[in-house]
Amino acid sequence: MKLALLGVGLIGGSFARAVRVAGKVSRIVGFDSDPAALRQAVALGVIDDIAMTAAQAVVDASLVMIATPVGSTRQILRDVAPHLSRGAVVTDVGSTKGSVIEAARGELGAAFPRFVPGHPIAGREHSGVEHSDAELFRGKKFIITSAAQTQADAMQRVEALWRAIGCCIEHMTPEDHDNVFAAVSHLPHLLAFALVAHIAAQPDATRKFALAGDGFRDFTRIAASNASMWSEICVANRGALGIELQALREQLERLERAVDEGDGETLRCVFQRAAAARADDLVRVD
Amino acid sequence: MKLALLGVGLIGGSFARAVRVAGKVSRIVGFDSDPAALRQAVALGVIDDIAMTAAQAVVDASLVMIATPVGSTRQILRDVAPHLSRGAVVTDVGSTKGSVIEAARGELGAAFPRFVPGHPIAGREHSGVEHSDAELFRGKKFIITSAAQTQADAMQRVEALWRAIGCCIEHMTPEDHDNVFAAVSHLPHLLAFALVAHIAAQPDATRKFALAGDGFRDFTRIAASNASMWSEICVANRGALGIELQALREQLERLERAVDEGDGETLRCVFQRAAAARADDLVRVD
Repeated sequence: MKLALLGVGLIGGSFARAVRVAGKVSRIVGFDSDPAALRQAVALGVIDDIAMTAAQAVVDASLVMIATPVGSTRQILRDVAPHLSRGAVVTDVGSTKGSVIEAARGELGAAFPRFVPGHPIAGREHSGVEHSDAELFRGKKFIITSAAQTQADAMQRVEALWRAIGCCIEHMTPEDHDNVFAAVSHLPHLLAFALVAHIAAQPDATRKFALAGDGFRDFTRIAASNASMWSEICVANRGALGIELQALREQLERLERAVDEGDGETLRCVFQRAAAARADDLVRVD
Repeated sequence: MKLALLGVGLIGGSFARAVRVAGKVSRIVGFDSDPAALRQAVALGVIDDIAMTAAQAVVDASLVMIATPVGSTRQILRDVAPHLSRGAVVTDVGSTKGSVIEAARGELGAAFPRFVPGHPIAGREHSGVEHSDAELFRGKKFIITSAAQTQADAMQRVEALWRAIGCCIEHMTPEDHDNVFAAVSHLPHLLAFALVAHIAAQPDATRKFALAGDGFRDFTRIAASNASMWSEICVANRGALGIELQALREQLERLERAVDEGDGETLRCVFQRAAAARADDLVRVD
């Protein structure tokens, strides 16, 4: 089975390593807009061959994995659509699903039923193929957000691959997916970026960072994530993210007022609701 | 040397365990407003004896450690002031220093020069003496924010103790301390609480938490911290925190506008400033 890997970064590289270890592919051809990433992927044995274009990569591939930042997905789909093999399954790992499905519907034409939109709930703050890891997805969730037209056999092929590399499969609608991850992923990333950028703009930022404790480091770890990738995610999911952001900003305005007025009781109530939820829902997985 | 430990929680309990292991104390008498915490502290061997009041605890103690939430510091100081031994050193571990020093100046009278205000940059999201750990402070910073009147020998005694249990000592003015930790500790805690409370208020909160990835768990770990303690910190440092909170809220308003308008370039610039700062200043200590 030939895999065309479009986007050779942390996620794409880890997927390639994992399916190779699982014995699910015989040959992996990679394409990336960054030639250095492609050379490194070959040197690391993540891919077997380099394609000069996305179109060239998909020739004779039975599986096409799109692992580029979500802002590039439409162009990639447009480039590869005329060159897909008959029966090829196209899938992706984008953090937003509504925008990706809309692009696939528009660009793939008759091949759209063989597009399986997916999202592995795994990642690291370090991007790039040099951090790729065949074990990145083990024990993690892989979410599939199929459309009404998605063919069952295409979906089952993608599911089987992710199961083989250690994932649990969950199905969601694209709308539900984008709402949930606006709240628990896109908003926290935006907040972490905003906080670190806010401190970085202060004259004694380096000293402040040096004095910070472990809590700050945990809280801001995701702010070391790839800026371009995350800005594309925020734009692609701007509807759902905008709603979350507005509600959170209103919550912060209430807290700001409470701080200004020395109203410890309002602060304590909000903090307590958070601490209880965090302990109930999450402590078991820490 | 007799230590009076006022407030038998994570930090006070860990300090008691550590100075005992280091052979710096012969007897530890504890007081806490929660009788269950006191009984547990005795059962765990963290303290030797229970005092019925803070005043009783400090009799004959050569060191008095105040490790209560900062909102109680003034009352504790008022209670113990008339009962302090001649030459006793009083110190604390509060996360805000301006409010604590103001209280000490007002309540300790002639004993104020023997008050050494301190803050160990260590903690956990789990509070309570049952989580106390003699190694909690090893390799961490201990910040001293002395006043002009603070006696050198009192300060040196406190420094020597914290050094003996593994801390590096740093000196800061109280104002500087409160500004720095408003930015790198109090604001991040408030943001984490606000985000988790915001999601917890949504009808499908439990499902959202279950779908969240590791990044969310890191980001929100500090939201499991003690709500009362943190609301007292936010009120005690409301001047500096209010300034940070306002600036951050304005930053979020800009990002909210960029999200609504699909302005990826503004998002990318802010995210990139954060990612670069996070990588430069912090990656070495992760």
